[in-house]
Amino acid sequence: MTGHFEVDHYDARGRLGTLEVPRADTTVETPALLPVVNPHVQTLEPSRIGDLGAEILITNSYVLHGSDELREPALEQGVHDLLGFDGVVMTDSGSFQLAEYGEITVTTEEILAFQEAIGSDVGTPVDIPTPPDAGRDQAESELATTQERLETAASTPAAEDSDMLVTAPVQGATFPDLRERAARDAASTGLDVFPIGAVVPLMGEYRFSDLVEVVLASKRGLPESAPVHLFGAGHPMMFALAVAMGCDLFDSAAYALYARDGRYLTVRGTEHLDDLAYFPCECPVCTEYDPADLQAMDEESDERQRLLAEHNLHVSFGELRRVKQALRRGDLLELVETRVRAHPALVDGYRRLLGIGGDTRFDEDTEFGEDDGPPTRPGFVAELEATDPITKDTFFHTSAESSRRPEIYRHHERLARFDLPAGTSILIAPSEGVPAALEAGVDERWLLLPPFGPVPRSLADAYPFTAEVPERFCRAAYDAAVEGVCRLVEANPEVAVRMAHEGWPAGVVAGLPERVELVDLSTSSPDR
Amino acid sequence: MTGHFEVDHYDARGRLGTLEVPRADTTVETPALLPVVNPHVQTLEPSRIGDLGAEILITNSYVLHGSDELREPALEQGVHDLLGFDGVVMTDSGSFQLAEYGEITVTTEEILAFQEAIGSDVGTPVDIPTPPDAGRDQAESELATTQERLETAASTPAAEDSDMLVTAPVQGATFPDLRERAARDAASTGLDVFPIGAVVPLMGEYRFSDLVEVVLASKRGLPESAPVHLFGAGHPMMFALAVAMGCDLFDSAAYALYARDGRYLTVRGTEHLDDLAYFPCECPVCTEYDPADLQAMDEESDERQRLLAEHNLHVSFGELRRVKQALRRGDLLELVETRVRAHPALVDGYRRLLGIGGDTRFDEDTEFGEDDGPPTRPGFVAELEATDPITKDTFFHTSAESSRRPEIYRHHERLARFDLPAGTSILIAPSEGVPAALEAGVDERWLLLPPFGPVPRSLADAYPFTAEVPERFCRAAYDAAVEGVCRLVEANPEVAVRMAHEGWPAGVVAGLPERVELVDLSTSSPDR
Repeated sequence: MTGHFEVDHYDARGRLGTLEVPRADTTVETPALLPVVNPHVQTLEPSRIGDLGAEILITNSYVLHGSDELREPALEQGVHDLLGFDGVVMTDSGSFQLAEYGEITVTTEEILAFQEAIGSDVGTPVDIPTPPDAGRDQAESELATTQERLETAASTPAAEDSDMLVTAPVQGATFPDLRERAARDAASTGLDVFPIGAVVPLMGEYRFSDLVEVVLASKRGLPESAPVHLFGAGHPMMFALAVAMGCDLFDSAAYALYARDGRYLTVRGTEHLDDLAYFPCECPVCTEYDPADLQAMDEESDERQRLLAEHNLHVSFGELRRVKQALRRGDLLELVETRVRAHPALVDGYRRLLGIGGDTRFDEDTEFGEDDGPPTRPGFVAELEATDPITKDTFFHTSAESSRRPEIYRHHERLARFDLPAGTSILIAPSEGVPAALEAGVDERWLLLPPFGPVPRSLADAYPFTAEVPERFCRAAYDAAVEGVCRLVEANPEVAVRMAHEGWPAGVVAGLPERVELVDLSTSSPDR
Repeated sequence: MTGHFEVDHYDARGRLGTLEVPRADTTVETPALLPVVNPHVQTLEPSRIGDLGAEILITNSYVLHGSDELREPALEQGVHDLLGFDGVVMTDSGSFQLAEYGEITVTTEEILAFQEAIGSDVGTPVDIPTPPDAGRDQAESELATTQERLETAASTPAAEDSDMLVTAPVQGATFPDLRERAARDAASTGLDVFPIGAVVPLMGEYRFSDLVEVVLASKRGLPESAPVHLFGAGHPMMFALAVAMGCDLFDSAAYALYARDGRYLTVRGTEHLDDLAYFPCECPVCTEYDPADLQAMDEESDERQRLLAEHNLHVSFGELRRVKQALRRGDLLELVETRVRAHPALVDGYRRLLGIGGDTRFDEDTEFGEDDGPPTRPGFVAELEATDPITKDTFFHTSAESSRRPEIYRHHERLARFDLPAGTSILIAPSEGVPAALEAGVDERWLLLPPFGPVPRSLADAYPFTAEVPERFCRAAYDAAVEGVCRLVEANPEVAVRMAHEGWPAGVVAGLPERVELVDLSTSSPDR
């Protein structure tokens, strides 16, 4: 860790940060998106990419190194002049080609020296990208090779004697323990930026639940101060979720590859130009043109590809601004709530993150709720909670999933430590409509607020209890509230608890311990 | 009904339609947004509003009529030339001023004649906008006045002898039965376009649940072929929900009023310019400027107001294109799913629409589920189902709420009518992992698919059963599936039913009739 990254602000596990890039004598604000520039085929000029909002881009040093036309010019002019881009340039090493073709002809020392020589600001060693679902033996042995190369990289002159930042990719296929170990080992090299590698197949197959697992396992092995790059993540539909997990850098070849194929990015998925009757976007391209205008152009035309690529980048940078504004404001999880509705697989990833539900079919270690509620298994909500600010703007309770947000987890953990004097009695009840008789003999009055559960009156005006909630609660909000009551009751075995509710479903209140005295205000008679 | 409106395509209750405007010798595609132009204060020139996407706008004939400067020019040049707009012009009548100031100085005959004389394409009588929560007596008596005026309007020369379309506003405060009756009476006048009036206070106070009630009650009283205008609805955050309920026309003064106040519209709510560090948008304004650029301008400056108004219109027309593309594609409810996460009050409106949950506190007629699940009361899902296409692109199951979509309601209604031969036995089970022994003695094998429930194998490849679903189900998906099984079982008392599930929560399967033989495949032993 060479200390080139600073976190300025957290929301959930996401952060606004600053990556110092000494060689470019500048800083990059994160989260950042690095458009991928193919040295041979430029759908958009790099200078234009800069105009559209890129502070940093990524190109492939292995392609430059292997090109008879481009190698010498890259060495002579430097990669910035060659591309005509005056921002920060990161270079990849050929690992992708290694994964695709099985071998490449350079070593880590050679390619890092070349990256240094062409003036790259952020260089990359030749790691081994083990694909998802590889066997454990393969994953472990390739990880050992990757780690050797990272250690080599850390001691090359390119890393040691130059101010080029060097990345330390984290591999380990879909084995969480290997990802965590790989991350710890990568961090121990003292290199600068940590790409989570070989996740493109997971994203391509919409395996967002597995992606959550891989990212969080990798994060567990990294120090909190490590800048994390989600390698190959370029679809704006997943930026909010990935940032909420603590990813700082993204790169996108999609904007150009998709454009060449007539595909159109949106935050709700990918559309094919031929399927659009209206442009579902307000970017400069989509306000100037109709789909019919582009459909009328030749599929191979540079103009059509350029316009689609510009749209694709506009929506990507626009989404990044939305994510940054949400981070700043403290409503990143509200944005995630919205974004995951784009596809059931994203909902699945979000549920995995929050520990909701589980595929019980082929999974031995699934846990179940007591005898009610959906099956649950541990999520990563405690890891989100650790960096989530104590206070923010108003909490918006907008779905079943939001009943499992870090704020509710944190409150429940507090309830489990809440120490009430033995022998006292408390009433947990709504703020209004409670007959005075119910307060008789009660020492303390708590509020009953789904999805939080019991809330001390003194905290009612504090975050998150000033939440905006729908009048119509879903089952998950009741369940979370009951869980909160259980936590408080279990922590205080010597306290008498009366709870008054307004017609809550019997199946929900059945989850409360017997010793809670229940009153249903909607029928005005004790439940039991 | 003069037959000037044609529905081209439905999704849920939303429609793509064509409003014929004889006087303008053109048609308007719906859903359409009518920017409001104040004749005295033009934040944006009407011609510029046309460039930004408006085919139709609305201005106030009462203001023109009462203006010493503008009345004569309006009569001489016509309203189109006066405004410099060559699209369709609708005019309002002064009802808003009536509501604000208690009286106005024109009659319906006078103002309609004036609207006709200035060349308006769509005119409006002077209805009485009864505010939400008015008493029933007030609402009924004002409704009687409104209806008299609509009948007057229908027989004025302005309506009878001209090809100007005339609107018939629907009032009735927050009384569903009055709204329904008002709509029926309005339709009986033979007028052309049906604004749902006096809903601005509901939207201003985020009472989207009440808005849903008012809109659906009004729709019940109107023929399906009536074009419906949601008067005063100009915030893009609610377009998708309003269109899904069958609203066709919207008008926006917000784009300009908000701009003058430094407020910035997004599909996720309203921001104040001063609170923005990044523009969460990709429109031409937001890609050319940073918030700091606009913050540096004088609050009163025309430039700042113009830029904010242009952004506000870009995002409004962009959202309208997204809604139209979703209508065309058949995924409007998926878009609604996404949009309602912007605010708990929108979630509440969506839950009201689908009949999920209920505020049990002050509402006598709330119904409850058996003894489990959230309290429910009737929603409007049957009304969405009536016009929802039988087949579409893939169904995306993306939330607890989506378990109550029209597709699931329709399937459950079918199950309740499904007639299996008496004496047969069926197995309802997942598609995989079912031991052969379970099929012994079974006459028919059905699939068990949350959130749908039991699905005949022959339909498994048809919409909506090809749904994309998360691997992790929420409680609502299980509940809906169990409800489906109950429907089938109850409809077939003479049929033996065995159901095999993979570790479903006990509280969920407890809702099944005793005679269903349950097998939990995750424990491989019969449940009972």
